[in-house]
Amino acid sequence: MTGPKTGNVLALCGGVGGAKLALGLSLILPPEKLTVIINTGDDFTHLGVRICPDIDTVTYTLGGLSNTELGWGRMGETWEFMENLRTLGGPTWFNLGDKDMATHVERTRRLMDGQSLSQVTADFARSHGIGPLLAPITDDEVATVIETDDGDLAFQHYFVRDKCQPEVRGIRFEGAESAMPSPAFIAALRGDLDAIVICPSNPYLSVDPLLAIPGVRQALAANAAPVIAVSPIVGGKAIKGPTAKLMAELGLDVTQHTIAHHYRDLIDGLVLDTEDAEMADTLGVSTYVTNTVMKTIDDRTGLARAVLDFATALRR
Amino acid sequence: MTGPKTGNVLALCGGVGGAKLALGLSLILPPEKLTVIINTGDDFTHLGVRICPDIDTVTYTLGGLSNTELGWGRMGETWEFMENLRTLGGPTWFNLGDKDMATHVERTRRLMDGQSLSQVTADFARSHGIGPLLAPITDDEVATVIETDDGDLAFQHYFVRDKCQPEVRGIRFEGAESAMPSPAFIAALRGDLDAIVICPSNPYLSVDPLLAIPGVRQALAANAAPVIAVSPIVGGKAIKGPTAKLMAELGLDVTQHTIAHHYRDLIDGLVLDTEDAEMADTLGVSTYVTNTVMKTIDDRTGLARAVLDFATALRR
Repeated sequence: MTGPKTGNVLALCGGVGGAKLALGLSLILPPEKLTVIINTGDDFTHLGVRICPDIDTVTYTLGGLSNTELGWGRMGETWEFMENLRTLGGPTWFNLGDKDMATHVERTRRLMDGQSLSQVTADFARSHGIGPLLAPITDDEVATVIETDDGDLAFQHYFVRDKCQPEVRGIRFEGAESAMPSPAFIAALRGDLDAIVICPSNPYLSVDPLLAIPGVRQALAANAAPVIAVSPIVGGKAIKGPTAKLMAELGLDVTQHTIAHHYRDLIDGLVLDTEDAEMADTLGVSTYVTNTVMKTIDDRTGLARAVLDFATALRR
Repeated sequence: MTGPKTGNVLALCGGVGGAKLALGLSLILPPEKLTVIINTGDDFTHLGVRICPDIDTVTYTLGGLSNTELGWGRMGETWEFMENLRTLGGPTWFNLGDKDMATHVERTRRLMDGQSLSQVTADFARSHGIGPLLAPITDDEVATVIETDDGDLAFQHYFVRDKCQPEVRGIRFEGAESAMPSPAFIAALRGDLDAIVICPSNPYLSVDPLLAIPGVRQALAANAAPVIAVSPIVGGKAIKGPTAKLMAELGLDVTQHTIAHHYRDLIDGLVLDTEDAEMADTLGVSTYVTNTVMKTIDDRTGLARAVLDFATALRR
């Protein structure tokens, strides 16, 4: 690539919302300049296979394979496995498409064979023709547990089986305290970054599990590159998923102030939607106002460019 | 069912060829009168799932779900899983259809959960609307091992991956010596049988693993009901599969004499194809000559009726 030198970018993300910005970044950056570090707190073992929802969402999104109709899973997915599982009386609360099953089964085979989740994730991404490096935040098992009045729920039980209905009292990340960051995360931080981007994923469910791993928050904050978060909140609502309901249940106002406060020791800048422009100067952190609602591919690349412009401005 | 009392029938079988006669028997017997005991020596664990080829072939055949075009697997099968496994660089030598995968994954889940293979097999058969009791010969793991000049091969490596190309020097059944017959097998033998039918499966690969389990051969021979084998050989050729090649490699003539000799201490009668009618009186065992090549449903029920008629004659 000729023209102005583009520095390295590290993006941190969860599933769907975060993956959209990761896609935007991948479309405007040379592949070798982008590392995408993905939440693994949602991962679980079901029907004997290891399922990594956020890794798969990011992989399918960057590989052009995602099911834009459903909002999750694979494009052109078929459901023969699921239908026959139902006939046999198996557990059907978690939908597994036929194409998707290959990902889980082959990943499980490789993990059992001694490969790390990092190796499997990078190799699957290459198989799908993805240029940027995709990596989990850790190769150790970290499990997001949702604390409710009816007891603890494994994340996917809360999120998929119970459709986020239970009121959330707290969230914890089992295994985080003894987990270590993945080699790709460590390498990216050592590699002269121009920007660290916290994608507009759920701060409590998708970003906090990453930050809960010892050393991660400190390493991000200490890095010379500006850390920029894109707020997942627009006009007092979450763009997608259970963020707003969850924030209310945790006693938090669904506002940019809450997001700015949540990331206060970590970020150098916060990207807000134009709908929240009037709050821009009241958050105690540098802000950048732009459209953050990513409906089209242009929205994704536009937001990615805005984030990198903001990083350039913050580096001056 | 009114009319002449039909006694209980125990059928022993392997995969495709044996399943055809088991289907014939299921079409002419009241469901509660038929128990089908199935070879498990071909079973193996692959991609983390437990695969029981003969149990599944019998189940799909009796459930009207078998792929008559391929000769194995499910009717209307799809291959999205396999195609994506190939994209990811996974092992693709053993084809696993999308519908079929549900069988293996759910079976594995239940086995891990503590259910016996007998329970899972009976329950899957019920789920597919199958009346007769289907059961493995044992709930313990028995593995058919093929001894070749290049060393030992797991059965599916020999049969599927290497397409029966390696010359066979011997066959052994690992785990058989410490395996116990399944409850359904024991119950059937205690239950006043009218006939014990050894279906036209490969004697060395599909029937011997059953007979290798301590007590099985003796219990069959000692039972008051006549034991009738249907020869898998027609005019010096095997109807299907590697039987003839295997017999030659083991130094055996591909004739009815070899089959009669193989089963000599066990059977009361041998059913031969009309093509081998001239040998009928030379085998040292009672014989019954009929069409044993099962191309149509009528062939299957016709052979089943012939076998039961033969049993009636032998009981007199």
